[in-house]
Amino acid sequence: MASKPSIPKGTRDFSPAEVAKRQYIIQIIKSNFEKFGFQPIETPSFENSETLMGKYGEEGDRLIFKILNSGDFLAKANATHLEAKDSTKLISSISEKALRYDLTVPFARYVVQHQNEIEFPFKRYQIQPVWRADRPQKGRFREFSQCDADVVGSKSLWQEVELVQLYDSVFTTLGLEGVTIKINNRKILSGIAEVIGASDKLIDFTVALDKLDKIGEDGVKKEMIEKGISEEAITKVQPLFNFTGTISEKIEKLSVLLSSSAEGMKGVEELRFICDNVINLGLSTASLDLDVTLARGLNYYTGAIFEVAAPKTVAMGSIGGGGRYDDLTGIFGLKNMSGVGISFGLDRICLVIEELGLFPETVTSTSKALFINYGDKEAFYSMKAIKELRADGIKVELYPDNTKVAKQFQHADKRFIPFAVIVGEEEIKDNQYSLKDLVSGEQKKVSLEELKEILK
Amino acid sequence: MASKPSIPKGTRDFSPAEVAKRQYIIQIIKSNFEKFGFQPIETPSFENSETLMGKYGEEGDRLIFKILNSGDFLAKANATHLEAKDSTKLISSISEKALRYDLTVPFARYVVQHQNEIEFPFKRYQIQPVWRADRPQKGRFREFSQCDADVVGSKSLWQEVELVQLYDSVFTTLGLEGVTIKINNRKILSGIAEVIGASDKLIDFTVALDKLDKIGEDGVKKEMIEKGISEEAITKVQPLFNFTGTISEKIEKLSVLLSSSAEGMKGVEELRFICDNVINLGLSTASLDLDVTLARGLNYYTGAIFEVAAPKTVAMGSIGGGGRYDDLTGIFGLKNMSGVGISFGLDRICLVIEELGLFPETVTSTSKALFINYGDKEAFYSMKAIKELRADGIKVELYPDNTKVAKQFQHADKRFIPFAVIVGEEEIKDNQYSLKDLVSGEQKKVSLEELKEILK
Repeated sequence: MASKPSIPKGTRDFSPAEVAKRQYIIQIIKSNFEKFGFQPIETPSFENSETLMGKYGEEGDRLIFKILNSGDFLAKANATHLEAKDSTKLISSISEKALRYDLTVPFARYVVQHQNEIEFPFKRYQIQPVWRADRPQKGRFREFSQCDADVVGSKSLWQEVELVQLYDSVFTTLGLEGVTIKINNRKILSGIAEVIGASDKLIDFTVALDKLDKIGEDGVKKEMIEKGISEEAITKVQPLFNFTGTISEKIEKLSVLLSSSAEGMKGVEELRFICDNVINLGLSTASLDLDVTLARGLNYYTGAIFEVAAPKTVAMGSIGGGGRYDDLTGIFGLKNMSGVGISFGLDRICLVIEELGLFPETVTSTSKALFINYGDKEAFYSMKAIKELRADGIKVELYPDNTKVAKQFQHADKRFIPFAVIVGEEEIKDNQYSLKDLVSGEQKKVSLEELKEILK
Repeated sequence: MASKPSIPKGTRDFSPAEVAKRQYIIQIIKSNFEKFGFQPIETPSFENSETLMGKYGEEGDRLIFKILNSGDFLAKANATHLEAKDSTKLISSISEKALRYDLTVPFARYVVQHQNEIEFPFKRYQIQPVWRADRPQKGRFREFSQCDADVVGSKSLWQEVELVQLYDSVFTTLGLEGVTIKINNRKILSGIAEVIGASDKLIDFTVALDKLDKIGEDGVKKEMIEKGISEEAITKVQPLFNFTGTISEKIEKLSVLLSSSAEGMKGVEELRFICDNVINLGLSTASLDLDVTLARGLNYYTGAIFEVAAPKTVAMGSIGGGGRYDDLTGIFGLKNMSGVGISFGLDRICLVIEELGLFPETVTSTSKALFINYGDKEAFYSMKAIKELRADGIKVELYPDNTKVAKQFQHADKRFIPFAVIVGEEEIKDNQYSLKDLVSGEQKKVSLEELKEILK
């Protein structure tokens, strides 16, 4: 290979500093998941194609990475499709496996497959990569990690209350103050659709309404009419154009607006339970907001819908989302299994924490000290100390080669190692170590015990 | 989908208990890697096919999972190969990407691609899954995790000394006493090949010699002659049939045996340096053994060769291995980059630790207490306490549904949750909590502060 090697577009190498930062965030998410009683599972990177295909719509099917069958795959290829050069139809006869597209479908498959071993309600978390053959662009990758927490097997709304608290707890631990946890409910949206008398126009309606801040009431109404929503319908939902006040006030407005819709009123009741309890229990740094334009995963969620917005000072879209889906495992034949869950957008959270300078300095710290290598005799003496320091959990290294001392110090410098330990004949004779602070330049002779104390 | 869903053969779902156990081992390996100055990197799950193909031999090429190009892949398929139904030749025109087969080739690719950002010598570790289209069998999977630590950019033998210490440190931390770290050197094997005058017979020779314990000296010699090794050659290496004693004694025997081979003597020198220093610095629980039959990765390693054997009480093959390869990055055009590294066999280590009962009981522990749900008013009171307990890092849960109390206690039982907290009208009135020890059955009323103390 003559040219410099590269990686596939949309994928990433992570350097030590990047891994350390991502691990810092993952560790905080994990420990909060566990504090809230979630337990980890892991599923295979690839699933049988039939497990994934047809679960994400036509577009999703296209974006799933397929794995070519091993061996003489053409021997079993469908001759008709091969003849016709029909790539789409040929796939199923030359590819039996596909890379995981998200963590939700594999989780549903896991629950159904292991239903007899699982103690329900089952609170699981899963932090694993997923793959999508999306067109790569800024912030969108073909391999990225999802961090999901879901509960399956209980319809209790206390789960929603806890999931809001979980978001608050994670972002508070990360020091990321000022996130907004937006909440809505699929049943509210159904109620609005009923009121405007056009459920097929619901998405157009919420998309237009979402622009209220930008284009004003008149602009929004104009767009709605262009999309075929009647003036009469718009008049009926007039209160949504002045949808301000506290969450309780908003809920009261909805209960008036949707009074004619049984499903809408069910949504109001659910929202009231969740919001009242969240507010009464209190949030640490996040704030809760009721956003009736929130419609993510419309065809998927059946109850609460969540989305987390980064603090307004950062230009970044959603950094998390989730909701309730009443029939999580129905696709695999297990009925009446309600699920509710949330997801953390690791890549975006990482960008936000970076932009706001919230990573602790210690995150990327490497070894505490580099022992300078003056030759095998000195190196052996150093290794004896290194062994004891490591046994005490202190990260230290010996420069492997007896090369120019300046080069060794430079190495410590480039790696941000704060101390150098110098061992020459004199130190060996005195059973001591010269410790040099590479920031202040200060140097002093110390015993092994003192070395331990200082580097600890 | 009517039938119960399943996963592809050779892959695994990991339950919460399994993830916890694996994470326990990974965490110990990671913290030791870091104590020894290694830094983590991560590379994409799939690489460009040209990065991987041809790097693992013909058999390896076959075992690499290929990813089908997205979209109309047949449009760019090679017409001739398609016509001829030649699966092997067609691959490169319908698949540009392939799943990682090991961590070493992606690491070499990483080093070459990022050579200008890397500060050498570069000590990296990497713990990620790899995929092989091997025939699945007991203990062999199509997806498994590798845990590798390598240093690139230094020929210093102190690295080998440290890698032996690293093995010792990891297995000691795991409480796995009695592992044997076997060491050999590619140059010793070259020396033996020179002495027996048949380098093409080297593998036959070492494979036969390795059976000494089982089939005795006569059996081994008979096999060697059958494989075409001359009696004369066998006589020359007679000392290897009685290769006992301390490591130092073995090294002396080799230095006599290989005195006519310059490369063999280089190997003796390297072995002596590594073994002397390891022995003088001391190992905690592992023992070092010189094994001249050790020949893993013969065409790959150029210096030291390592393999770790589980304690003899457990019937398990190697649980780790590694060695030095003088031209790690040459395949990607960067010459003179010596590398040395070791790998931990996570799956097998997990089996050994399980078999010997060395997992700490706390590994699979879940929540400390389950709050029994007696209704929304009681649940709200419970949630206030739960919030405070979690803020103190204590894992606690509320049973989400106000269902039969017996069922809730059963849930705690099945999940091995040691305490239940009961909140009724009386507790709310007294601002207290009834804490029930689910092992002893003892129950008492406590304040929130007392609850914190006990559950901590």
